[in-house]
Amino acid sequence: MSEKVVIIGGGAAGPKTAAKLRRENPDIKIELYTQEDIISYSACGLPYYIENIIQSPETLIMRTPEDFRKQNIDIYLKSRCLKVDTEKQTVLIEDLVSNNKYEINYNILVIATGASPIIPNIRNINLKNIYTLRTIDDGIKIKKKMLESNKAVLLGGGYISIELLEALVSNNIQVTLIEKNSQILKMFDEDFAQRVTDYIIGRNPGQVSILTNEEVIEFRGNDEGEVKKVITASGKEIETDFVILGTGVRPNTDFLEGSNIELGIQNSIKVGNTMRTSQANVYAAGDCTDNFNLVTNRYTWVPMGSTANKEGRCAAINIAGGHCSFDGILNSTITKYFNLTISIIGISYKEALELGFQPEYAIVTKRDKAGYMPDSSMMTLKLIADRNTHIILGIQGIGEGEVNQRINTVIPAILGKTKLETFMNLDLPYSPPYSPAIDPILNAAQIIYQKIKD
Amino acid sequence: MSEKVVIIGGGAAGPKTAAKLRRENPDIKIELYTQEDIISYSACGLPYYIENIIQSPETLIMRTPEDFRKQNIDIYLKSRCLKVDTEKQTVLIEDLVSNNKYEINYNILVIATGASPIIPNIRNINLKNIYTLRTIDDGIKIKKKMLESNKAVLLGGGYISIELLEALVSNNIQVTLIEKNSQILKMFDEDFAQRVTDYIIGRNPGQVSILTNEEVIEFRGNDEGEVKKVITASGKEIETDFVILGTGVRPNTDFLEGSNIELGIQNSIKVGNTMRTSQANVYAAGDCTDNFNLVTNRYTWVPMGSTANKEGRCAAINIAGGHCSFDGILNSTITKYFNLTISIIGISYKEALELGFQPEYAIVTKRDKAGYMPDSSMMTLKLIADRNTHIILGIQGIGEGEVNQRINTVIPAILGKTKLETFMNLDLPYSPPYSPAIDPILNAAQIIYQKIKD
Repeated sequence: MSEKVVIIGGGAAGPKTAAKLRRENPDIKIELYTQEDIISYSACGLPYYIENIIQSPETLIMRTPEDFRKQNIDIYLKSRCLKVDTEKQTVLIEDLVSNNKYEINYNILVIATGASPIIPNIRNINLKNIYTLRTIDDGIKIKKKMLESNKAVLLGGGYISIELLEALVSNNIQVTLIEKNSQILKMFDEDFAQRVTDYIIGRNPGQVSILTNEEVIEFRGNDEGEVKKVITASGKEIETDFVILGTGVRPNTDFLEGSNIELGIQNSIKVGNTMRTSQANVYAAGDCTDNFNLVTNRYTWVPMGSTANKEGRCAAINIAGGHCSFDGILNSTITKYFNLTISIIGISYKEALELGFQPEYAIVTKRDKAGYMPDSSMMTLKLIADRNTHIILGIQGIGEGEVNQRINTVIPAILGKTKLETFMNLDLPYSPPYSPAIDPILNAAQIIYQKIKD
Repeated sequence: MSEKVVIIGGGAAGPKTAAKLRRENPDIKIELYTQEDIISYSACGLPYYIENIIQSPETLIMRTPEDFRKQNIDIYLKSRCLKVDTEKQTVLIEDLVSNNKYEINYNILVIATGASPIIPNIRNINLKNIYTLRTIDDGIKIKKKMLESNKAVLLGGGYISIELLEALVSNNIQVTLIEKNSQILKMFDEDFAQRVTDYIIGRNPGQVSILTNEEVIEFRGNDEGEVKKVITASGKEIETDFVILGTGVRPNTDFLEGSNIELGIQNSIKVGNTMRTSQANVYAAGDCTDNFNLVTNRYTWVPMGSTANKEGRCAAINIAGGHCSFDGILNSTITKYFNLTISIIGISYKEALELGFQPEYAIVTKRDKAGYMPDSSMMTLKLIADRNTHIILGIQGIGEGEVNQRINTVIPAILGKTKLETFMNLDLPYSPPYSPAIDPILNAAQIIYQKIKD
């Protein structure tokens, strides 16, 4: 092949595509363009860098441009993609150092431009010390500011805010988290979101405040233009040294306006299970693409680092002439707040109701190991299944116990549409240091099945 | 119902059946007979009692006879079942205190007599301080002896010996483990058994010896009749203060000889998925029953506490007129040696070959969390799938990392006959404290799939 593959984006999916494609095809020409000055880093690790669990930001870089160049992959840093012309098969690139613009041609294009934080429309949003967290540079700035501060405000109650909250709390910052909805972690059922809130407040009463149903309408600064106060719709005035916006992200697809590449939900790029876009020789992977939800059978947009890696790999295999099908996602997410694991897979009870399922649920609060093992810990699982089909629709888990183990047990069962009556007798390995004789996740299935039968 | 249900056996399955049946039916008469003087205890926890992770043996008792009596379940301790007459619907019981024998009648019988250690035919096996570990009494005796000893010999290289080895090593005992096969943990592939051996020896060089291909032919005692030496076929003479036999177990079904209750593999009781025996009104559950292996589609006998609990529950539901199907097992087992988790599900590579599959495997050694997280640990997974069907046949995992999480992820996939190409893109939740962006278990599936395609 004397074809040239051009990859736009240097986060997770782009470099993954490049590396896998090189392994699949030693000869094909590969060029990767990114607007940043590094590539291939773990943005998901940034909260742990800020917390200082990881000391150096370089630790988060998986592979350097030099590593890629050794594999005969041409890396162009600080090079932004402005426009794609699918008929001419060209991309317009802007060199962010010289501001020169130039066109490059491709035979196959891979769009992996990721997503960017949404900047909410709030008065004085441009004051100093109001941050978003997406790049390593963002992380370095936040950490530096945190180390000289006492108070912070987090906007938004999603995973990134929970992770930043841990980082700030462990660095002795007084934190106010402000969420405009009635609960934090809006993908969870309200009862589970409340459990997380209770844990957070209970762990550090006085140090953390969580305000829900509260909207920020204005920032106020000092003479140096530094944010000093956060004003809410209900009239609260919260003093702060800095603010971090965790108010969502959106796909980086503006540059595709006017191209023939079809966009889907929330302006993400429509891709099929081969990662091909509406244009046969254009692929897309990672946070800029849409996702197919295998529980709801609907398209959705859930940008995740794990999905980005899988999609990049799949795109590479297909570009190389192989076959890889990335069929979809289960909205699987996990995070932690200190020792508390927080995870949801599939859909919540309220979402199941909204979607027209006939959901039934069970909540079990049990120890993760045999109760007599001194290092056993509690966890609470909420399993959701459909009354008609007996198929598992979702699982929420929180606790200091081994939640991830139980969550993962449910995932292939959701994917495989395993019925409750089969799942509840699943042969999970048992030994007192690992679980009770009947694992709590099986208890949950037994309870729902009993409810459905009654 | 004025029916009487008689349950024989007080380990895990019998009490479970009784308790669940009482919840399903508040009125039915339930009598439970056991030859021991306690019921409803966790035999699996005994090694941790010996190790002194658990201080009191009472901790292992889940429910006392008094607890059961409060639920109107009649418990008869020290009462051994000698014979079952399925035509007269009677059981002959021996009172082990008075040695009186008497017949009781039943409408429905549940046999849950468990299993007992196999005593190998070795010269002087009756010397003092040669133990087996099955009951709490056994555990108390072993712990007492251990605390006044310096040296021990463990016979057999199965899970119980690995668990006892941990207990003895952490109590500063010099231990020799003797295994007659060429490897310990014979359900594992040889390479994985070797990894465990290397870990054990590497952790405490000089304190532990593991002898394989070595058979014990004689014990020698002192004038008090206490074992002092273990003599092997190759001529080794090993000094010891006590010996624990971990040389397998067999189902307690001798008393069924001459009855109409059909026995199956290794003299375990043949049961269907309703836990019914060959006699319509006789059920069996727990270690005394056979098992159906859902990977090999063959009957097997794998006595496990988790299976006993599920079977007891199922038997109770069916006796109460409900419907519960216990379809089979996957040979799922797990144990640990200090920080090393050791687990196998399904079949090994060698077993797959023996059974006529066309197995392919992948071994991955990776960190369990993002590599930059300071508390990440290594683990090694060996995934096995069939080249023809792409179906996963088994998984072996060992390591200080979170092996159980990965093992459990594979289990519903084995049960659901999920193909590699689906499994390898499974949407597992990702966050740096929980896994790398692509989980090692998915890497393993990707590698096998690549091998199969090549």
